Amino acid sequence: MPVAYDSQNIFAKILRGEMPCHKVYEDDVALAFMDIMPRSDGHVLVIPKKPARNLLDIEPGNLGELMARVQKVAQGVKKAMGAEGITLQQFNESAGGQVVFHLHFHILPRWAGVSLRPHTGQLAEADALKEHQKKIADALA
Amino acid sequence: MPVAYDSQNIFAKILRGEMPCHKVYEDDVALAFMDIMPRSDGHVLVIPKKPARNLLDIEPGNLGELMARVQKVAQGVKKAMGAEGITLQQFNESAGGQVVFHLHFHILPRWAGVSLRPHTGQLAEADALKEHQKKIADALA
Repeated sequence: MPVAYDSQNIFAKILRGEMPCHKVYEDDVALAFMDIMPRSDGHVLVIPKKPARNLLDIEPGNLGELMARVQKVAQGVKKAMGAEGITLQQFNESAGGQVVFHLHFHILPRWAGVSLRPHTGQLAEADALKEHQKKIADALA
Repeated sequence: MPVAYDSQNIFAKILRGEMPCHKVYEDDVALAFMDIMPRSDGHVLVIPKKPARNLLDIEPGNLGELMARVQKVAQGVKKAMGAEGITLQQFNESAGGQVVFHLHFHILPRWAGVSLRPHTGQLAEADALKEHQKKIADALA
């Protein structure tokens, strides 16, 4: 049985403009912004504008539209960051690693020999985050 | 510059019937089969039938069609395995964790408090793999 969407989650608040974000891309379907606890430099999240808890409950047509944006943002992040690869992650339910209950795809730029940083809960250094945001937003403009 | 698709990769061979797989789902767009080095019980891969190296080069319309299958298989895997969550992973280029150069989504059933197993290269125990294959294929039939 699907779990109901909770409209008080932090990404819903970002979509409503009630919380700030470091935006890198936006259109009618999706919003993309910097993860403030990046596991690699240039770690970006892509979320649908329509409410969806996760991959398990999103309307398939909306998922298809969203993925075109995930691809576009992944290409832009790779280019902007000069990355050698991209790791895509998406977590469903707490046991699956989900913390915020609005569907989001993690786009993680990768370089050979550089591991993902552990999830420490540590916030990114503000200047680095803004520098990465600008580079990525410019690549996607 | 995108890297050319190599038609000799192992998933291309599976699609051409030149290599076996433990199939759980197939239609005109996608094939899903058991990962033979599962990082959790019921670990399934979903691949497009059309050639694509990874997320960075797949035709967006084909990606949209594929994701409807990724969702369907994720729902079926969760139900069949009695999982509490699903972790979705997708790797692009060697630096991003990619080993086989045909686009594939990893669907990993998850349970609270159970970590993913490390990537040891160890093959799954054959009976367990067949049991999971049957359960998942039945859920998707």
